Amino acid sequence: MDKVFSDRIADVPRSFIREILKVALDRNVISFAGGLPNRELFPADELKQATEKVFETYGRDVFQYSNSEGFGKLREYISAQYREKKNIDIPVDNILITSGSQQGLDLLGKIFLNEWEGLIIEEPGYLGAIQAFSIYRPMFLPVPVSDDGMDVIKLQEAVNSHNPKMMYTVPNFQNPSGISYSIKNRMDVAEVIQGSKLILIEDDPYGDLRFSGEAKPSFKELAPDNTVLLGSFSKSIVPGFRLGWIVAPEPIMSKLVTAKQATDLHTTHFTQCIIYQYLMDYDIDKHIEKINHVYGNQCKAMLRSIKKYFPGDVTSTTPEGGMFLWAELPEPLAALDLFDLAVKDHVVFVPGDPFYINKTRTRTMRLNFSCVDEATIETGIMRLANAINVLQEKNGQAM
Amino acid sequence: MDKVFSDRIADVPRSFIREILKVALDRNVISFAGGLPNRELFPADELKQATEKVFETYGRDVFQYSNSEGFGKLREYISAQYREKKNIDIPVDNILITSGSQQGLDLLGKIFLNEWEGLIIEEPGYLGAIQAFSIYRPMFLPVPVSDDGMDVIKLQEAVNSHNPKMMYTVPNFQNPSGISYSIKNRMDVAEVIQGSKLILIEDDPYGDLRFSGEAKPSFKELAPDNTVLLGSFSKSIVPGFRLGWIVAPEPIMSKLVTAKQATDLHTTHFTQCIIYQYLMDYDIDKHIEKINHVYGNQCKAMLRSIKKYFPGDVTSTTPEGGMFLWAELPEPLAALDLFDLAVKDHVVFVPGDPFYINKTRTRTMRLNFSCVDEATIETGIMRLANAINVLQEKNGQAM
Repeated sequence: MDKVFSDRIADVPRSFIREILKVALDRNVISFAGGLPNRELFPADELKQATEKVFETYGRDVFQYSNSEGFGKLREYISAQYREKKNIDIPVDNILITSGSQQGLDLLGKIFLNEWEGLIIEEPGYLGAIQAFSIYRPMFLPVPVSDDGMDVIKLQEAVNSHNPKMMYTVPNFQNPSGISYSIKNRMDVAEVIQGSKLILIEDDPYGDLRFSGEAKPSFKELAPDNTVLLGSFSKSIVPGFRLGWIVAPEPIMSKLVTAKQATDLHTTHFTQCIIYQYLMDYDIDKHIEKINHVYGNQCKAMLRSIKKYFPGDVTSTTPEGGMFLWAELPEPLAALDLFDLAVKDHVVFVPGDPFYINKTRTRTMRLNFSCVDEATIETGIMRLANAINVLQEKNGQAM
Repeated sequence: MDKVFSDRIADVPRSFIREILKVALDRNVISFAGGLPNRELFPADELKQATEKVFETYGRDVFQYSNSEGFGKLREYISAQYREKKNIDIPVDNILITSGSQQGLDLLGKIFLNEWEGLIIEEPGYLGAIQAFSIYRPMFLPVPVSDDGMDVIKLQEAVNSHNPKMMYTVPNFQNPSGISYSIKNRMDVAEVIQGSKLILIEDDPYGDLRFSGEAKPSFKELAPDNTVLLGSFSKSIVPGFRLGWIVAPEPIMSKLVTAKQATDLHTTHFTQCIIYQYLMDYDIDKHIEKINHVYGNQCKAMLRSIKKYFPGDVTSTTPEGGMFLWAELPEPLAALDLFDLAVKDHVVFVPGDPFYINKTRTRTMRLNFSCVDEATIETGIMRLANAINVLQEKNGQAM
């Protein structure tokens, strides 16, 4: 009782990404550290037009309190998109608008997780999810992911030995690794969890950002009874409006609405109206094509430079979409040590450590390619290659 | 482990206010049930102008991810207002922008409350706070409030016997009762908690909406070491933008920022910019005067009609501001029974029950006067008086 703060807040890891981003504000620093969509691609004029139309159309109703489930028309649009583009039938009543996908994670943690219940999480996994779920103090059960997806044998072991309640996945262009689960891997994962009570959270903020390869089935199709799906407008339109959604059947939906009310009553109605108007008046598919063209080229440029400049024993993933790739240094180098050298060479990235539960001095690092043009990517990777060489020399001397 | 949902979500009361509001959608029904600011008073044109200026001034930066603490200029404005209008010194670094005050409650529950720790709450108290804190499963310790404020003897007893961690108050024009703590009562409350480790949450969403009487000192002045202050633009400008703030010193602020990141990363940057632009370009004091003129007249009209039409043994509070008053039926009438009769007479209100912890069939009710014009208020109170008479007759027969 004499402690000031709750036990739960002590368990939440602070993001040192914040500290990195401060370094990245220096204009001389090339940053592969961010997790931001490219601001040059925001449909700024279109959103301005949409905003004007919202003022005309809805008048003062856009300013009033609104319902916790979210703007009806926007929910109908999302439902229609699932039907038309993915042939998945999602009733409007099963869609809750959230203040970004991040809030979806908080609400799911709130309604599902008791202290010490098992939560399977990808290793490496999304830092924001680790933070959101840490609040509810589950037992994290990391299961490795690699190029093809999740390690199904380790998944089966975790399910058998810990009877976990929930599982968190980003099967498309995962943050931080950029990998996607193959079709076979998705089917294998679905087989493990089907028939169990495990709740699978399929977080899909990047799904639309595919610049190569073929779309793969959602867990909502492969394991419909187990899957809760999260979506977002942050990567496809703009992140600053904080708009995402959860797809969940009754009775989960009913609990989510209770939690949403208790948490912030409802998501900003005004920005929901603007996004809806934008979606009605403009061709979102064409806009996403534009994003994917740029991100695809920048990803290729990064892979090309990695191949050209990095020592041969540094490996990397080959993303089919999204905003990140993942590189691994050879033994015994630690990405944290590389970071210190790289800052001096005016290039930054995110060392892998925060994406693991209880692992430090890992050899991995996240490289973001969405916000840096192709020429700058080459310069940045050259600088990073130089830092790797310096680190290897130093390490050689130490041994 | 076989339960689907967390224990904490089972403890959150669902609001039957939602159900009432559905009835209130019928145009023939006069509603004193809502908790909404009057939409006719929203500065719609001014916000439209401010929005256009934001597009011009900030360009695409308004669409990007932003920092968890909130928009710097808006936080500076809030800090300056406390200094200029209330002579309270609040450093900018001690202000966190939240997605409405409701989110402030969720974040404070997150960082402070362990299960079963004591939480003093006003009786009757704000339903949204009961919902928000229920998530974190405290032991609620209701302390009665009446015309002058909190029952200080009962407060002292609760502090002595339960060593509570936190206390939640709405000292100005409380929701649901409309009462305000007198200066003496504030000083008495401050004396009880000063020197203790009790965290006092002073929720002040209505503070600016004073239409009679004099402003009273904040607990932030009377018990500065214990007080965390919450503010909101929902009642003074618009609620739909979901913008509020928390004032808290280090190290509380640091924990709040961690919790905010884990919960939704940050509050919508776009709406923060618009509100800031509105505050720069227009006279908010003049706008608030306009609101207070209307609410003051409507409150007077309601009190006048209550005196004229209600049976003499129905009592009510006399608010100096805000949006609500509180009426109490004589023994043995229950407000829930009155509600059923009132709906038939096409008038609705909120029966008092949801504003109590574990009390049902109370005699109290919340009447909202912000959204109904003076003539309609008279008609509505007449209908309600008729329903009270019918209930008293019925009750007489039953006895």
